[in-house]
Amino acid sequence: MFGTVAIVGVGLLGGSLGMALRGLARHRNGSRIADRVIGIARRPSTIQEALQIGALDEGGLDLAAAAGADLVVVATPVLSMAPLFRALAPHLTDGALVTDVGSTKAALMEQLPSLLPPGVHFVGSHPMAGSEKGGVLQSDPDLYVGARWVVTRSGTTSDEAVARVWALAEAVGSEPLALDPREHDEIVARTSHLPHIAASALAAAAAAGGIDTNQLGALAAGGFRDSTRIAAASPEMWRDICITNRAPLLAALRDLQLRLSEFETALVNGDGDSLLRSFECGQEGRRQIALAMPERMRPR
Amino acid sequence: MFGTVAIVGVGLLGGSLGMALRGLARHRNGSRIADRVIGIARRPSTIQEALQIGALDEGGLDLAAAAGADLVVVATPVLSMAPLFRALAPHLTDGALVTDVGSTKAALMEQLPSLLPPGVHFVGSHPMAGSEKGGVLQSDPDLYVGARWVVTRSGTTSDEAVARVWALAEAVGSEPLALDPREHDEIVARTSHLPHIAASALAAAAAAGGIDTNQLGALAAGGFRDSTRIAAASPEMWRDICITNRAPLLAALRDLQLRLSEFETALVNGDGDSLLRSFECGQEGRRQIALAMPERMRPR
Repeated sequence: MFGTVAIVGVGLLGGSLGMALRGLARHRNGSRIADRVIGIARRPSTIQEALQIGALDEGGLDLAAAAGADLVVVATPVLSMAPLFRALAPHLTDGALVTDVGSTKAALMEQLPSLLPPGVHFVGSHPMAGSEKGGVLQSDPDLYVGARWVVTRSGTTSDEAVARVWALAEAVGSEPLALDPREHDEIVARTSHLPHIAASALAAAAAAGGIDTNQLGALAAGGFRDSTRIAAASPEMWRDICITNRAPLLAALRDLQLRLSEFETALVNGDGDSLLRSFECGQEGRRQIALAMPERMRPR
Repeated sequence: MFGTVAIVGVGLLGGSLGMALRGLARHRNGSRIADRVIGIARRPSTIQEALQIGALDEGGLDLAAAAGADLVVVATPVLSMAPLFRALAPHLTDGALVTDVGSTKAALMEQLPSLLPPGVHFVGSHPMAGSEKGGVLQSDPDLYVGARWVVTRSGTTSDEAVARVWALAEAVGSEPLALDPREHDEIVARTSHLPHIAASALAAAAAAGGIDTNQLGALAAGGFRDSTRIAAASPEMWRDICITNRAPLLAALRDLQLRLSEFETALVNGDGDSLLRSFECGQEGRRQIALAMPERMRPR
């Protein structure tokens, strides 16, 4: 399907993609999606690890290694993408296709396409896969299986470029979905970015009451574990995501604050009816959203 | 270990306890903890289901069935316990031991012991086990295995009564822990009750932005699923828990609100450094608490 693919940024997403491109996902039965997978990272140790786990055919530290690739996938933190695209541009071959895996899309779709030379195609991607455990050593060739892969286009994106990224998403086992970048950002503000802020604030608040964390841990169980799981994710990555989706995220955050202040008022007043309504509202919101989740992600 | 045990309220906790008492937990290899397990519920269908899944030897709708039990375990919602104890009192045998499984302890420990006749012993319990999926049909004989089981006493509780509940906890596979009721409530306000409010408010806020829930669900993944899992729990049960732990929960909720307002200010100002610090604080709080969690509950 592809000749040479260059993956720039070899963390969990880049490493897992490399493994999938090399045919290691279960549904591929060893059948490769790309003839050659080149990884480019900042640290030699990352390339070493990526080669060891079978995520790459070759690796290097120089963006010049992307020359000759017919597909370049950029899998670095969102705020690093613009400078990286500028540095990458001189090395790209005419006709090459570039995509990113950034978690926000509107800011990137405004900025990135104009940084690439004419003759190079750009499509925005957001595969909805990941884990709070980052790093190339966590890579999993099946990471993308059953996940939604959002595909976004700018005014200059050709149908053919979109079709090739669509085919990439399907080949690694994902379910591609075309979305307007702003619409994407408003949705993920509520389904992904707000949960990260909530989990992080919750974990910080749990530890903030002056109670020894050993005592807290002794009584913490599955509810605490699961509701704060994503608080373990990379702070740098999530800073970047939040800073590039400020307006939709602020609107979502204020909806969360409003609901918490309703809980607060009900507790102050000892108002059981109001508490009941608030819990019912959360239960119903969760039920409706869960019903529409992709099969593999849906709660059992 | 016990002759006759009466379980009042046969939901997830009561049903699972019944199964464990009848020797169905894996570590018991069929060896029973009680000779006879009687269940008492409000609805005939509950008793039917409990008998079908092997949670009880006998069941009925009348509290008089608790007469002759040497151990009575009350597993009903927290606010129903006081009236239930009043109704139960005339049926209890001299020397009987009563415990509850309520998620809050201070209010119950003040109220419940005085409702029982002299000669009946009371120990407060809180097994830290459960699921957002309630009901007797969800029962699992291994539910209590590896879970912390908090044991609380009032001024009149005898050491012997504590020892018997301690032995019960160990027999079903739990790790008993003695705690002062107020101390227990302050801890679980942060590790259990606040997470339920946060998950519920988060699920409600996600659905509150005017975006179709089908679109939200299409882009929701593991982060949303896990951070809102406990929002699916029984609203009635959580109303009762919150209303009986108001002061500690309000303090915890205000810590959460403070942290969210820090995120809000950082987003308004586009302050990446502040966002980074907030995410780092959540990551560290989670790490410290997770380290101290019981082995079976700890994140992998």
